[in-house]
Amino acid sequence: MARSTARRSVLRIRDGVRTLRPDTLAAEEPMEIRVGGRPLAVTMRTPGHDFDLAAGFLAGEGAVHRADEIAGMRYCAGATDGDANTYNVVDVVLAPGTKPPDASLERRFYTTSSCGVCGKASLDAVRTTTARALGPGPRDLAPQLLAALPARLRAAQRVFDSTGGLHAAGLFTADGELLCLREDVGRHNAVDKVVGHALRGGLLPLRDTVLMVSGRASFELVQKAVTAGIPVLAAVSAPSSLAVDLAAECGLTLVGFLRGTSMNVYTGAHRLEA
Amino acid sequence: MARSTARRSVLRIRDGVRTLRPDTLAAEEPMEIRVGGRPLAVTMRTPGHDFDLAAGFLAGEGAVHRADEIAGMRYCAGATDGDANTYNVVDVVLAPGTKPPDASLERRFYTTSSCGVCGKASLDAVRTTTARALGPGPRDLAPQLLAALPARLRAAQRVFDSTGGLHAAGLFTADGELLCLREDVGRHNAVDKVVGHALRGGLLPLRDTVLMVSGRASFELVQKAVTAGIPVLAAVSAPSSLAVDLAAECGLTLVGFLRGTSMNVYTGAHRLEA
Repeated sequence: MARSTARRSVLRIRDGVRTLRPDTLAAEEPMEIRVGGRPLAVTMRTPGHDFDLAAGFLAGEGAVHRADEIAGMRYCAGATDGDANTYNVVDVVLAPGTKPPDASLERRFYTTSSCGVCGKASLDAVRTTTARALGPGPRDLAPQLLAALPARLRAAQRVFDSTGGLHAAGLFTADGELLCLREDVGRHNAVDKVVGHALRGGLLPLRDTVLMVSGRASFELVQKAVTAGIPVLAAVSAPSSLAVDLAAECGLTLVGFLRGTSMNVYTGAHRLEA
Repeated sequence: MARSTARRSVLRIRDGVRTLRPDTLAAEEPMEIRVGGRPLAVTMRTPGHDFDLAAGFLAGEGAVHRADEIAGMRYCAGATDGDANTYNVVDVVLAPGTKPPDASLERRFYTTSSCGVCGKASLDAVRTTTARALGPGPRDLAPQLLAALPARLRAAQRVFDSTGGLHAAGLFTADGELLCLREDVGRHNAVDKVVGHALRGGLLPLRDTVLMVSGRASFELVQKAVTAGIPVLAAVSAPSSLAVDLAAECGLTLVGFLRGTSMNVYTGAHRLEA
């Protein structure tokens, strides 16, 4: 995990007083995901848990659903920095019979962007690519339990405290036990890493879990949760309109502004205790 | 601007007390950018200032540098929602002689993602696509002036206050006067809208300006600032390692953690008053 942070010199100004000192930053490097040697996508990510990221990205695309659909993953030697391996290219070998994702330009536009061009088409597209319907998920979720999650997420975050610059995603059981925490400069990557970890551990679909994210809830995060079978998504900040619409369509419980003892339940309130 | 927010019903829980009430959310809808009728990209954005977004996106790609390179922009009738115009497809007609951006898959991967696959290649790619070198920019910038920008940005934000869910980007003169403010669910979109507005007004390259963003400073935001000729980028939160590296390469002044009377100057401190 040494590469998840980087040291740089910084001029600090505090009330007019200047000091030159080293600072710890969240590392950001591009990672290329290949499938069977063919480039599929490049994402700017924080190095670390790269295989989780690759697996979770493919799960989010609806390309893989089970651990045994991935035969292997490896770092390719990077040709861009002399002969050195940059550890920034991950090649995924799919199991025989597993269909590789469509890497065509059209699919990129309409699936990586997770949408058609009006909200309606988007929701249709997601319904099509979501392999499984959401299960009933947890019942009688206590608001107090949800309220405790942000502090647990924060307590488990290792890199954030040193850099202040990372998004976190945490997967919890319905009893509030942390199953997996991942951090990244990219919000989507943090979620992909969590889902990829679960996929590789044979845990998909993630019924009876709660996904907690440190920032906002966008359309794409709702889509990733639904595709992984996660029935409850909680965010520290605001959801967007399309996030709420998709959550309603798919039967996801979407909680926003989860702070202190308060929260907004946008959809799926039936999973909360009466 | 009516479509920049949306109303949805929400169950509020505050210290165990539940109330059902309407809530205002930041709108999120996909927008497809076409050039001469050919699809180029889809971005999830907050509707509003869509022509600024399209122009700024093309400027960020290095495809256009001046207002007169764009002959016109219009909304296409959206075929995805019956015959209704969804106002989610913008077609840009380039002026005769202006080369359309390369929409090939490879270019998408390596330029939209703004990178090769190691940091070194990324920086090389940016140096190549950045049409202009950064000018000297402002001199003797007062830290007090920078410290005043977040409050000015916040004061000018209209949608955030009602939704709590938007990123903001503000372009300021070196004297701290606000030239343009744009908000969006996407950080990159907010910056694209600011740059597009400036491009359409004939203001590129944006010498002697300061770009202030409400969130973190990523590699891609630094790249967008440099490509627009902006010499100073200030962020409320942390920069990533690659953002600092690219800023150093390009001679950009990068300020992070701009809060109250304190800030971190990562690169380009020579533009600050001694």
